[in-house]
Amino acid sequence: MKKRPSTITDIAKSLNIAASTVSRALHDSPSISKETKQAVMKMAKQMDYQPNMLAVSLLSKRTKTIGVIVPEITSYFFSTVISGVQDMVNEAGYKLVICQSNESFEEEQKLIETLALNRVDGFLISPASKTMKFTHLERLRSSGIPVVVFDRDCPGFDADRVLVDDFDGAFQAMEYLIKTGCRRIAHIAGPKNLTTCQHRMDGYIKALQKHQIPVDESLIEWVEGFTSEDGEEATKRLLDRRSRPDAIFAINDAVAIGAMAIIRDKGLRIPEDISIVGFDDEPYSKYFHPSLTSVWQPVYELGMLSSKILMNHLASDLDVTQFRYELLKPELIVRNSSRPV
Amino acid sequence: MKKRPSTITDIAKSLNIAASTVSRALHDSPSISKETKQAVMKMAKQMDYQPNMLAVSLLSKRTKTIGVIVPEITSYFFSTVISGVQDMVNEAGYKLVICQSNESFEEEQKLIETLALNRVDGFLISPASKTMKFTHLERLRSSGIPVVVFDRDCPGFDADRVLVDDFDGAFQAMEYLIKTGCRRIAHIAGPKNLTTCQHRMDGYIKALQKHQIPVDESLIEWVEGFTSEDGEEATKRLLDRRSRPDAIFAINDAVAIGAMAIIRDKGLRIPEDISIVGFDDEPYSKYFHPSLTSVWQPVYELGMLSSKILMNHLASDLDVTQFRYELLKPELIVRNSSRPV
Repeated sequence: MKKRPSTITDIAKSLNIAASTVSRALHDSPSISKETKQAVMKMAKQMDYQPNMLAVSLLSKRTKTIGVIVPEITSYFFSTVISGVQDMVNEAGYKLVICQSNESFEEEQKLIETLALNRVDGFLISPASKTMKFTHLERLRSSGIPVVVFDRDCPGFDADRVLVDDFDGAFQAMEYLIKTGCRRIAHIAGPKNLTTCQHRMDGYIKALQKHQIPVDESLIEWVEGFTSEDGEEATKRLLDRRSRPDAIFAINDAVAIGAMAIIRDKGLRIPEDISIVGFDDEPYSKYFHPSLTSVWQPVYELGMLSSKILMNHLASDLDVTQFRYELLKPELIVRNSSRPV
Repeated sequence: MKKRPSTITDIAKSLNIAASTVSRALHDSPSISKETKQAVMKMAKQMDYQPNMLAVSLLSKRTKTIGVIVPEITSYFFSTVISGVQDMVNEAGYKLVICQSNESFEEEQKLIETLALNRVDGFLISPASKTMKFTHLERLRSSGIPVVVFDRDCPGFDADRVLVDDFDGAFQAMEYLIKTGCRRIAHIAGPKNLTTCQHRMDGYIKALQKHQIPVDESLIEWVEGFTSEDGEEATKRLLDRRSRPDAIFAINDAVAIGAMAIIRDKGLRIPEDISIVGFDDEPYSKYFHPSLTSVWQPVYELGMLSSKILMNHLASDLDVTQFRYELLKPELIVRNSSRPV
């Protein structure tokens, strides 16, 4: 048989006293003599006894565990958010259970259900791209489990939200490209139902309109995923059209890097023929050749702030009646993949 | 007051029956009438009652939770391992608690203690670079909690281990560079106490010896971390020496990319003046210019296999008497940052 962790009963047997005496001794009850307490503590140490936190959780109804649901953990963006979350919650003695939905609505529902059954105290969630209704989140809240939504919004679901101002990031990128003289600016856009992608598209269009540049539908390409391969395919389609773009604003850095590979393959120069701007400012982006102009997002701060708001809820015993809405500011980092002003 | 999840007592009060009757009805006890069962089920649904999995865990002594301790989750390597682990354990109904040690021995000890107190069923661990003794892992095992070590070995601690053949990966890279005519091959090596780095160093030296090339200490540079900035600094030191290397074998892709940036800054050509080979084959590596030659590792498989071994232990009730030692094979991917043969 496999060795099992020592229990209070094991200690009681070894000392030939009642289990209830051991339990009271371990909890430093005044009804137990100092000698007995010392004997119990000594034996507990000797037997490597560890108090059962599950039993403690059951009494306090709290598990000191936070569930984090992200579309995927392998991307720079989400793994960095999680780093921020972890640094914040570790301080407060919370543990994280991190799960990825793989952008599937069904998986997301299943994960939330399992974690809620296991009495996770609260949730941090960035919904899957396939998630369009939020009854699973409503259900959590009506059971008294607080939820903080981050990065991707859940339209129609009232909750604390910590988002990045994607509109502003896109607008900054576009105004910069326009100032450098680009006029046929293409946009490789992400999944239509993600609010982050919608807001970047809004920023793209509003910047063109502000500068009286007509929106040309033939300069907009959509990708389903966020990979460099997606960027390659979209760029091939853009370059096959009659009239070439003079700049590409990509939904993220990975897509931008795929675009750069195709442009180079076609014998075109970056930025002389086509300027490229990404979104995310990943650590590698400055090492590409030419180095990638990109919109930096406060990713680590996003994780810190989301978890801070959640922990404030957990620390108070009041119903949440007002939700916080935090919009973090991104910043354009200009490098060599775009022309100078 | 905050709304609390419904309990058996709440259901009992609403139906004006005993809590024990509700409990037995929910567990489908034959002593309870069909009518009462139906009434209880209906009310449980209405009140959104969810059985307390903690209480269930307490009875079974199992939490169906696996602790994963990695040095950091933001790297491609570890986040991809975790993806493999998650896909494997989800199938079996296990949850993951993922924690990062930030390469600190103290943090690693603290995390393991906390998770063990919370009755994690088993551990997957890749030790921190600062971890030199393994008493904290010995202690886990002596409490009957199985541990599988992955990627980084723990010399002196007997356990199941799933590693990559780092020696072979380095040897492949070096033999290739030698075949292309390189003779002054530098190595940017990682932290000396990590087994992965030691084995890559062994491969570097053995390949030189096999081809009767003397080992030149002035061609070896050490880095503390694994970032591109570390690679930049090490490369500056290498290029400042009197006699320049004709190739650099870097401890990983991030370091190789930093090296490429410095070589380009100095006006040298890759691979004509200096060939570059990395280790990891990250998704971006083929998009660098020139595209990076690198040693691919079966990262996802590493996660799948480690968790499979752990779950086999958890499924059996026998003491682990024999440990498994799995050595996965890496593969050199030749691209344009190294000269052709």
